[in-house]
Amino acid sequence: MPLITFTSDFGLNDVYVGVVHGVIAGIAPHAHIVDLTHGIPSQDVRAGALALYAGCSLFPPGTIHLAVVDPGVGTLRRALLLRTTAFWYIGPDNGLFTLAAPTETLLGCWELTNREYHLPTLSATFHGRDLFAPVAAHLANGVRPEELGTPASMLLALPDLALHAIGRGQTSGTVLTVDHFGNMVTNLQASELWREGLTQRRVTAWLGDLPLRPVRTYGQGRMTIASTHPAPDLLLLAGSAGLLEVAVANGDAARTTGLGVGAPVRVVVD
Amino acid sequence: MPLITFTSDFGLNDVYVGVVHGVIAGIAPHAHIVDLTHGIPSQDVRAGALALYAGCSLFPPGTIHLAVVDPGVGTLRRALLLRTTAFWYIGPDNGLFTLAAPTETLLGCWELTNREYHLPTLSATFHGRDLFAPVAAHLANGVRPEELGTPASMLLALPDLALHAIGRGQTSGTVLTVDHFGNMVTNLQASELWREGLTQRRVTAWLGDLPLRPVRTYGQGRMTIASTHPAPDLLLLAGSAGLLEVAVANGDAARTTGLGVGAPVRVVVD
Amino acid sequence: MPLITFTSDFGLNDVYVGVVHGVIAGIAPHAHIVDLTHGIPSQDVRAGALALYAGCSLFPPGTIHLAVVDPGVGTLRRALLLRTTAFWYIGPDNGLFTLAAPTETLLGCWELTNREYHLPTLSATFHGRDLFAPVAAHLANGVRPEELGTPASMLLALPDLALHAIGRGQTSGTVLTVDHFGNMVTNLQASELWREGLTQRRVTAWLGDLPLRPVRTYGQGRMTIASTHPAPDLLLLAGSAGLLEVAVANGDAARTTGLGVGAPVRVVVD
Repeated sequence: MPLITFTSDFGLNDVYVGVVHGVIAGIAPHAHIVDLTHGIPSQDVRAGALALYAGCSLFPPGTIHLAVVDPGVGTLRRALLLRTTAFWYIGPDNGLFTLAAPTETLLGCWELTNREYHLPTLSATFHGRDLFAPVAAHLANGVRPEELGTPASMLLALPDLALHAIGRGQTSGTVLTVDHFGNMVTNLQASELWREGLTQRRVTAWLGDLPLRPVRTYGQGRMTIASTHPAPDLLLLAGSAGLLEVAVANGDAARTTGLGVGAPVRVVVD
Repeated sequence: MPLITFTSDFGLNDVYVGVVHGVIAGIAPHAHIVDLTHGIPSQDVRAGALALYAGCSLFPPGTIHLAVVDPGVGTLRRALLLRTTAFWYIGPDNGLFTLAAPTETLLGCWELTNREYHLPTLSATFHGRDLFAPVAAHLANGVRPEELGTPASMLLALPDLALHAIGRGQTSGTVLTVDHFGNMVTNLQASELWREGLTQRRVTAWLGDLPLRPVRTYGQGRMTIASTHPAPDLLLLAGSAGLLEVAVANGDAARTTGLGVGAPVRVVVD
Repeated sequence: MPLITFTSDFGLNDVYVGVVHGVIAGIAPHAHIVDLTHGIPSQDVRAGALALYAGCSLFPPGTIHLAVVDPGVGTLRRALLLRTTAFWYIGPDNGLFTLAAPTETLLGCWELTNREYHLPTLSATFHGRDLFAPVAAHLANGVRPEELGTPASMLLALPDLALHAIGRGQTSGTVLTVDHFGNMVTNLQASELWREGLTQRRVTAWLGDLPLRPVRTYGQGRMTIASTHPAPDLLLLAGSAGLLEVAVANGDAARTTGLGVGAPVRVVVD
């Protein structure tokens, strides 16, 4: 049973997401569709790239990841199919796949030029429905990439999304996004050195000027906050995608600190 | 594999939507359910009718469209099954199907009176779970409409939902709804004349007193806004369901204009 | 086709829910997953317990109910599998199953200690993905509970969630939660006595000092409000899970009254 994931900035209050499901069901009735999220902020390609980075890797090999955050819809931006060792990615050429499928991991890349595999009428406003969804469905049906389009190169990338692994001495980064719980996700990757430093209590960290307490779990915050920390107890811990995040136990770190995307973070491992 | 879509004003913060899925899974385990949207504003039958109009048409023939926006639940309003050439529709008789399945397209209509196909206990507050969901599931299992109820006629309609195709001279309409991106969807249909006029630059348009710029894509707005439009660049373009909508490139038209549902729109094709 | 429901406080704006679907799809590709709700307020175990009480019972026997509202993730709180006559429940030992699977209904209970059935790397922050989802998938594949862990007892419960059936004379309760429509759900159960009293007009009720009008349907409120009630017409009726709830016809009871969770409710049956 082929598996397709679907990520977008469509929200769930309109019918757009449901319509894409319908188009896929009409072409590939046995495909199984998983909605990764449709809560990407409108037209925020950077947030979409982070969601794909955090969300795609644990799906079974062969999964088709369809992603539509597409402010350039109807212009000359290309429509792409990417192939990596594990997955397929389908979406616009605007940097959306910068983190999940960086250029060096690509086994192939095609521009989706074959109109036979799109809906008969291609609107100027909704390529998610008219182009990307049908291509995902045909791919799920076994159509080969060479039939869907022509080889492409020179993909757009978003350079400010670069991730940095924690090294010896100081590593600097920024807050990339704030999640549903108010946790502030940074572009700093928890490396082996981070984990070692944590065990040996040799890590110090700051969000702007605010000191952070490096910990392993949210719970470590909750258990000590009452007795020892009159000020808000800002934690720094490795989130579920391996990126360090600033959190407040049982609270909202973004609201507590009044900081958000772009705020500077520093980590020092002695 | 039978396909059921599900549209409601239940929202996703309570368990109502999940419970309906559970009831259907219990009766028709092989049915595939697609959530069209559950973000219809509470009890807003008009918004529900528009969602069904915009969302149902691209599903495969034979799809069962279940829709529950039902302020009259527990009163004497009828429960209906409608059949058109392409689809089945199940829901309350309150005008919800005015646009998606107008009377002239109906091949059959039944009032869902057979209690054998409802849950054993029919609550006064949740017919989505107790009546509409089981009927959708039994229909997916192949039960014939004659067994589910008795022929019905004289359905309720919502006359203010009438759509108007763009004609020569002036066509007047109103804003029917505002979507997730702040785009203001009107009751004006993009006709062949609209597309011709657009190519030949013979179209002018207004939202109230505000001039609109007729375009083909959102992107056309974005590319010119910096140089030529100091005031907000209000676009008018054909949305994904063929209805004209007012948009601001990379912005929120409703917030920008301070206008909303009911605002007048005029289009003139010379 | 095994059926798994999934309830959490993850929200739908991040990828967490989608990732859990992906993990399950990788282990048990034929399992069917129904999202009950992911709108439980962050870390609100009490609201999660109510959602499971209201949402699980109508699923087919054998359904696996996976629930993750888990403020203690990464600490020593246990991970559990519960078995009742009808269902399986999987989640943290923090009282989440107090209402849906009270101790006296349990046929078995296991602590999920067998690391072979978890993801290879167990994070400190996301047991929904790393532990609970894989266990649900393996259970769906037919793995026996004895293989997943060791027998457990002495589960945590949330005593303030006790429900009270309406009896003769006065029954006192409180508001437990407020739903999407603003309806205020109480811990009072509609008993046979409630239904009898309603028919014979022998019921009186209050929310704090505000008199309530006991009715059978929301519609009964709407039809009479204009003529007879200048003040807001506060209704008391049995909601879809059998719990009494305070409602305003076509309105939002919580906003109308300014009251919320914890507000006292009294019902008197003469």
